Amino acid sequence: MTLSVRSQASPTIHEFDLIRALKKRYGTTSARIVRGIGDDAAVIASGRNRYLLTTDLLAEGIHFDRRTAAFTDIGFRAATANLSDIAAMGGTPEYLLVALAIPRDAIGRQVRQLYDGMMAACRPHRVNLIGGDTSASRSGWFVNLMLVGSAAGGRLLFRSGAKEGDDLYVTGTLGDSRAGLQLLQRRRGMAPAPSLQAAHRRFLTQRHLRPTARIREGRWLSKARWATSAIDLSDGLSGDLRHLCAESEVGAIIELAALPVSSACRRYAVSVKKDPTALALSGGEDYELLFTVSARHRARFERASMQQHFRMTKVGRMTAAKEGLRMTLPDGRQRPLPCSSYEHFRSRSST
Amino acid sequence: MTLSVRSQASPTIHEFDLIRALKKRYGTTSARIVRGIGDDAAVIASGRNRYLLTTDLLAEGIHFDRRTAAFTDIGFRAATANLSDIAAMGGTPEYLLVALAIPRDAIGRQVRQLYDGMMAACRPHRVNLIGGDTSASRSGWFVNLMLVGSAAGGRLLFRSGAKEGDDLYVTGTLGDSRAGLQLLQRRRGMAPAPSLQAAHRRFLTQRHLRPTARIREGRWLSKARWATSAIDLSDGLSGDLRHLCAESEVGAIIELAALPVSSACRRYAVSVKKDPTALALSGGEDYELLFTVSARHRARFERASMQQHFRMTKVGRMTAAKEGLRMTLPDGRQRPLPCSSYEHFRSRSST
Repeated sequence: MTLSVRSQASPTIHEFDLIRALKKRYGTTSARIVRGIGDDAAVIASGRNRYLLTTDLLAEGIHFDRRTAAFTDIGFRAATANLSDIAAMGGTPEYLLVALAIPRDAIGRQVRQLYDGMMAACRPHRVNLIGGDTSASRSGWFVNLMLVGSAAGGRLLFRSGAKEGDDLYVTGTLGDSRAGLQLLQRRRGMAPAPSLQAAHRRFLTQRHLRPTARIREGRWLSKARWATSAIDLSDGLSGDLRHLCAESEVGAIIELAALPVSSACRRYAVSVKKDPTALALSGGEDYELLFTVSARHRARFERASMQQHFRMTKVGRMTAAKEGLRMTLPDGRQRPLPCSSYEHFRSRSST
Repeated sequence: MTLSVRSQASPTIHEFDLIRALKKRYGTTSARIVRGIGDDAAVIASGRNRYLLTTDLLAEGIHFDRRTAAFTDIGFRAATANLSDIAAMGGTPEYLLVALAIPRDAIGRQVRQLYDGMMAACRPHRVNLIGGDTSASRSGWFVNLMLVGSAAGGRLLFRSGAKEGDDLYVTGTLGDSRAGLQLLQRRRGMAPAPSLQAAHRRFLTQRHLRPTARIREGRWLSKARWATSAIDLSDGLSGDLRHLCAESEVGAIIELAALPVSSACRRYAVSVKKDPTALALSGGEDYELLFTVSARHRARFERASMQQHFRMTKVGRMTAAKEGLRMTLPDGRQRPLPCSSYEHFRSRSST
């Protein structure tokens, strides 16, 4: 994400205030900057090419926990977070730079495993590692990736662009990553383990440790001009929908009963006596795409996406901005969409 | 620097070993990657354009100390470290991305001051801030910048390219930044303050807190095709010369009496009973350029650089690789060049 300030960064620093202040103070309007501060990636024009640049920083104890993730998994997730930003804009990831800060007791094998994980996530997309910087850290690991992507033909998806009346879709299923994380934490004795089939348990933990960036889906949505706007789900549906609505200046209504939840996630929710819909709404790091499609293309779009074997589910529609963000409960009543979005380790353990 | 592993990163991780392993494992030979792992910046070809990408990570307590530098200074130095990588390749810096990890007690003003400092260093070069990421840190500040530059006409300087017999030059003066840092540490009561004129004291501390990236010099050296190779001095002359020689597969001999030392640095060295040459050889973070010029162009080059009002000093010449790195003492004797290069806060305080 470009110039994001994660909500848990500091209790006294307010996300939107800081971004607004920086945008006002340093935001520029150069003809070559197609997109600057405020979308999933920055976009630069170079002749007929468009380049996308994104950076995501993961800090130990905040975004990952070495008790629940191996170094290869940490690397894989760090790469996916960045790949997913490129996917959300319909781009093709190309080049990777890696900045690491490593504690004094780090060993070479850990660094190599981290790189192995990153490159495992990047290899299917033929991303090349072109540089980086490795330095010391007084405490904990910091993994900061920068990814450069391109947009063939210059076609891209932005957060802005959703119109009132557009249908709202998501790829894949929601809440799996959060359920997987909770399972890993329980396995480490942080809470009692629920009874769950091994296959379901494996599916959910893999969805947390090895999430998929929806590069192919993003390119297709952009290239065939299906989507009017898109964002990737890193903070969770309710949080990221808020960003999409803010940039597009529209409202939205979500159909709770329509949210795609995997059977593994549903079983997990039942076993821990939780509502699977809550996991789907606020569980973060699914790295699915949330996007809008004009309602008049609905039938054609759904047919075309099925032909591609994509799982894309209509979960709501865009409304006028003044109607805000709402949800329809299974019984038909409407309620405001709760603000809760993904909270990282730190916030969870301190609250 | 691209894919550097700073020597102090971890006592068990060896710089060259890790870079070699990563290069072997993940290095690619795509036609569009003009330079990958191992130079000051990575270089990507896009049509007739060349893009440079570099990243430098600064960690609190390792690369900066809040007792001796204000947030604006920390931002300025972080930007200069990246600008200097672009300068060393003869490029023009264009776009900046900023990733910050900030401790929980951080306040908005500190973040803004950090950005103010970065942008103060970037503004003379008309670099645009296009994105970034701000996140929490469990302990200490991490400032990771990524800079994108371009090379007009595709002309660039590399670390490789120096030939046996080439003259070796540096811009500016050496050792000022290290002297300035020591003065700041002494001012904070870490050691007794030496007697020194206020103007000299100010000059040295400013050279540490507000170093200059030699963008104009780098572009000129590249554009007019004067230099056969170049590197920026972040680790110190003896350390960075080693990188240049390794990439160019040559040796070098330094004339100690020729090293350019400012009168302020000389006075400082005298006042603390140190050898100014040692500061010039091993003091890091001067961000001057170290470069080679064919000896047959010497007269024309020196005349042209004077016309530009550049301070560029011949400090030695390149030799055959088998002769290694040597220095000529003021009395004419030759000695091997000591390995010592810049050590950051951590190493200094722990040894």
